[in-house]
Formats: sequence, structure tokens, C-alpha cells
Amino acid sequence: MNAVIENQLLARLAQGFSRSPLQLNGHQESDAELLRLPGREEVLVLQTDSVAEEIETGLYDDPYLIGWMTILVNASDLSAVGAIPVGVVLNQTLPHGADEAFIERLQAGIGDACQACGFHVLGGDTNFASRPQMGATVLGVIQDGRVITRRGCRPGDQLFASGRLGAGSVYAFHKLTRSGPAPEYRPQPRICEGRLVRRFGSAAMDTSDGALAVLDQLLRINQVGFVIDTPVEELLTPEAVGLSRSAGLPGWLFLAGPHGEFELVFTVPGPRVPAFRAAAAAAGWDPVRIGRVTAEVEVVLHSHGESISLDTGRIRNLFSEVGGDAGRYLEALVKLDAAGRRPVRPAGA
Amino acid sequence: MNAVIENQLLARLAQGFSRSPLQLNGHQESDAELLRLPGREEVLVLQTDSVAEEIETGLYDDPYLIGWMTILVNASDLSAVGAIPVGVVLNQTLPHGADEAFIERLQAGIGDACQACGFHVLGGDTNFASRPQMGATVLGVIQDGRVITRRGCRPGDQLFASGRLGAGSVYAFHKLTRSGPAPEYRPQPRICEGRLVRRFGSAAMDTSDGALAVLDQLLRINQVGFVIDTPVEELLTPEAVGLSRSAGLPGWLFLAGPHGEFELVFTVPGPRVPAFRAAAAAAGWDPVRIGRVTAEVEVVLHSHGESISLDTGRIRNLFSEVGGDAGRYLEALVKLDAAGRRPVRPAGA
Repeated sequence: MNAVIENQLLARLAQGFSRSPLQLNGHQESDAELLRLPGREEVLVLQTDSVAEEIETGLYDDPYLIGWMTILVNASDLSAVGAIPVGVVLNQTLPHGADEAFIERLQAGIGDACQACGFHVLGGDTNFASRPQMGATVLGVIQDGRVITRRGCRPGDQLFASGRLGAGSVYAFHKLTRSGPAPEYRPQPRICEGRLVRRFGSAAMDTSDGALAVLDQLLRINQVGFVIDTPVEELLTPEAVGLSRSAGLPGWLFLAGPHGEFELVFTVPGPRVPAFRAAAAAAGWDPVRIGRVTAEVEVVLHSHGESISLDTGRIRNLFSEVGGDAGRYLEALVKLDAAGRRPVRPAGA
Repeated sequence: MNAVIENQLLARLAQGFSRSPLQLNGHQESDAELLRLPGREEVLVLQTDSVAEEIETGLYDDPYLIGWMTILVNASDLSAVGAIPVGVVLNQTLPHGADEAFIERLQAGIGDACQACGFHVLGGDTNFASRPQMGATVLGVIQDGRVITRRGCRPGDQLFASGRLGAGSVYAFHKLTRSGPAPEYRPQPRICEGRLVRRFGSAAMDTSDGALAVLDQLLRINQVGFVIDTPVEELLTPEAVGLSRSAGLPGWLFLAGPHGEFELVFTVPGPRVPAFRAAAAAAGWDPVRIGRVTAEVEVVLHSHGESISLDTGRIRNLFSEVGGDAGRYLEALVKLDAAGRRPVRPAGA
């Protein structure tokens, strides 16, 4: 299996640190850190994430979006473990001489996202530097102490997404290739959906780095594979389907972009699917079935009578291999598409 | 009362955010955020702090020190509320192309500080940018739920520090004026001392921004004043006393530097002082008595038959007023020293 550059780096950074005896999740095996204090049933959830590279590359330049995403990226991780939000502390690095209007829009984005996610800002730390950077750390709680992580899916489980995919790729495509104005990008929290996923699901992860990155990570941790057997057009937002057609790009490329849409991708054991579907419907939520978990450690996409074997490890490394160049990245993906196609094998493979 | 620029900025940044009903401390009234979950006795403590400006100005250039301080600045805030450390999540922004040796020293500093403070690294977020920046968020717990904050001191309380002061100013003086090699700067955690302070004290704050910044903040929150009646030489480290003499600078300037020493400054009600002293001695700790809390809202220093009224609000703003220039800062402080001197008034004033 190809090594994933990001996983290697994270493992190297953490290698000298001792693990906490209170921590329930293994390294890189959960979207958020899960802790149980001695003698307690409930689980505390701690997670931190920053918006830094998105600012540096110009992907996020609207201060309202920067503020919104500072909270959303963290809320998304909490939702992937099905936690209830408790509070957030901010790590704000403001640019030297930031003007009133910038700060007002930034804080409005943070405040609105907090309201949408059910957070209160508890406090924070403010610094000044040549470049802005926004971090936040969220605290959540799982009252009944029953956790879901990235580990736990088995062959036969069904694979779902919390909503249609591709909005992050569409936004990044327009923003980085400067092909016309980018559509509004404003991912919504999935806190309520995450609580249902925790109740019925076997593994979950958010698509902050794109849907294929989720499948790759779940594959590595669980030593399973995935078949995407829903037609890819039915997995994508209308905007992603439209761009796929107008730009002549294979639809699955919108699952591959490293700038994700902050949906949840998760697995549900077959016998629990009807009850899960019923609970979701009762909550007014229509999860998108993607495919199923397989014993073969590979991600395969069925599309128009062909199957494409997706080398997800390769794909995750690709963006850094091409130095973050969006054009070269797309070219490389199109090549992978051509190389991976083969006739669909008999069902059940 | 002069407004403090930093307080104003923090209030402005937070003004649109709603407060959590679970939060026990007011805005800027505690070194760390204090939360009580419904139906619980224990208090959860969350705090985040970054090392950013210290890197940008060159004050911290040794990666080991940067790593050590990333943890220590947060542990110091936890100690100021007397919490037991639970865990830490990191927000690491590494410089593009950081070499192996840099990362190894940085992580060694983080790991060693975690061990010294009693933390485990639970996880974190890693980014890359043109400039490094290190943030961390710590989670702690106060099991009996009895809290101490910056609010609570009263006239008649005794004023203490957890150790001798001035190490942060001495380090910054050498580093920023480039007057010879800087002495080693490696503040130590005060977690155990903080737990005793919580048991006996009425208010506490760490000296991350210097001791006078603590007195100014406690003065504003509690509407009290302070008399520093211990000779200033007895408050300072030997290195600070030595530099004060060799550079011809008034001793109290080493309490004024905005780069602190990460000790605790705290107040203990008079009747509790003997029991506090006894408990501290039993723990092998010798707290430094600084002076006392007064009803007059002013910070006064008694020194060699004179008293100096210290305009602490002015002093806190001074460093940013002179644009962070260490030489101009010292000049301005020396002028304030001359302007503030007067004969000591009768005892009890």
C-alpha cells in the first residue's frame, strides 16, 4: 500500500509523545480526540483545526468565509464523532494593521457559524503577524459514552454520505483556475446528523479533505475496500455535475479534490440500515447511499458499464506532488482515470 | 482610569459573541475558561495560547524553546486556576521546508514540557506557512469544583508571587538589545503551587505579560490597589538584580517588561496566610511576599525611603506605543520612574 505523505508526517510529529491512558481513540483513528475521565460514563471530545493554507493560497479571501470556516471545520469534526457542542476557544492571528471592516466581517462569520453549530465562544488568544491565521479548539460531550470513530466498518456495511458531494471541489476549481466567479461556498454543520450516525453507524469521518481521502483513510485503518455503485452523478451536487459536463472532467474527480465539502461519510451495518433510514427520515434528513464495504482492500467505482480502480493513496499525495498547482493536478487525475478503467466485474466482487 | 489597548481589542473582538450559560468566569476575569456541565460538581477548564509574536520578533529562535513555551504558556494558565492537567491538542504551523533538525528540537521541547507539566498530547492540527507559529489548547479539571479567578481580592489581603520575578525581562533585554548572549530562559510549571493557591487564595493570575500587568488587571477587575512593600531586590532573581545594577536601571522595571516569567501572582486573605504558609512549606515551596491589597485604586511601590506611584495602565500600553522598540521602551520607563517618585506617606496610607 502506498504511504500517504500526510499520515507519515503526522506519525513522525507525534512519535515522541506518550499517549494518554484516558484517551479512547488511536492516533489518526478519529476526527476528534475522545477522553473518558476516571469514574465517568460520559466522553469528553476535544478537537482543534486551523484555517491557514486556505488563506495563504487565496482559496479563502472573504473574511466572513474565513470566520465561518474557522468554526465549521471544527464543528464538522465534532459531528463526525456525534458529540454535542459545549464551547469553543479561538486562536486568532490578525494581520498587522487589520482594518475595522475586515475584523467586523471576520467576527461576524465566526459568530454566525457558532450560532448555526450551537457553540458559545468561551475565550481565546489573539496575536498579530504578517499573515492572518485562524484556529479554534472545540469541546464537546457524548453523554451516554458510546463512541464512533474511523475504526469499525466491516465488509457488507453500507456506505453513505450526509449530503451530495463536490461543492468544495467546484469552489476550489473556480477560485484556483480563476475561471469565472466562484459560487458561494458555505458548508453547513452536520451536528444533528452526526448524532444519528453515532447511534446507527460503524465508522465515520468528515470530508474536510475530500470524499476519496475519507475512503482511503477508512481503508487503511479497517483493512477493507469500498465499491461505489451509485452512479456518480447521483452523488454530486448539481453544480458539480454541471461543471463536470462543461469542463469535460470525469465526475469522480469531484470526489478527489483535497478541498472538501464538510459532509460526513460513514458506514452502517446492513441490518441497521432500515432503522437508520427511518430515524433519518423522521429528522427530515435524506442521507445519500454511496455504495458498500468490501473485503478486497481497494476503492472501485462503477460507472456507465465500466469500473475504475481508484488508487486513493496515490490521489491523496498527488496535490502535494504537483506543488499545489490546480491545472497540473487535474491533468494528473484525468490520466489516472484513463489508466484505471476496466470492464465491470461480476456483481459481488 | 486609562484604557488598556489590549483589553479594548479583546472586548471588541468578543462583543458580538454570546456567553455560555455553563461558563463560570466573566470575560477577561480568569486565566482559563471555567465550565460546569449540567448536574456536575467538577469544573472543566479550557485554555488556548499561541507562541507567534515571540517567534516573529526573534525573541524565541531556538526550536526547543519554542516547543517548550508552546506547552508552558498554557500550563501556566491552568496553574493560575489550580486545575489538574488532562490533555493538550497542538496547532502547529511549520515553516515550508522545515528541516529534520528543526522539527526534532521543536517536538523535543513540546514533549519535555508535557512531561514536566503532566500533560499528554491528544492530537492536533498541522499546517504549513511562510512563518512558523505554535499554538496549543489545554484541557484541565477541578474536581471539587471550587474555583479561583482574577476576581475576589479585597483590601487587607496579602500579595504573593510563586517565585522570584524578572527572568522574562532579563532574557528579553539581552535578546532584543543584543547586549551579549541571553541567559537560558526556561520557565517551570507551577501546577502544584496553583492547586495550593486555589485552596487558600482569593485571586490569581500568571505573569505571562509581566507582574505589573497582573496588578493592573487585578486592580481593574477588583477596584482595589496594591502596595509593594517588600524591597524590590528581594522580589527579583539574582540575574535581574545584577542587570539592574550593571545597566543602572530601577529594579521595578524588571516587573514591568511585557515578556513575563510565568510565575503566579496571587492574593491570600490575612487570616488564611499562616495556614497557606504552612501548606506551602510542607510542599517544599517558598512563596515570595510582595505586599498587600489596598482600598485605594493605585499601585504604589515603596523603595529606599521613597514611594513610586506606578501608572500600570500607561505602562501596559507603552510597549505597543513605542512600536515594540526595546530601547525606547526602557527610556520611557526611566522617565516614568522619575516622574512617579515622592516621599513615602505614613504607614497604612
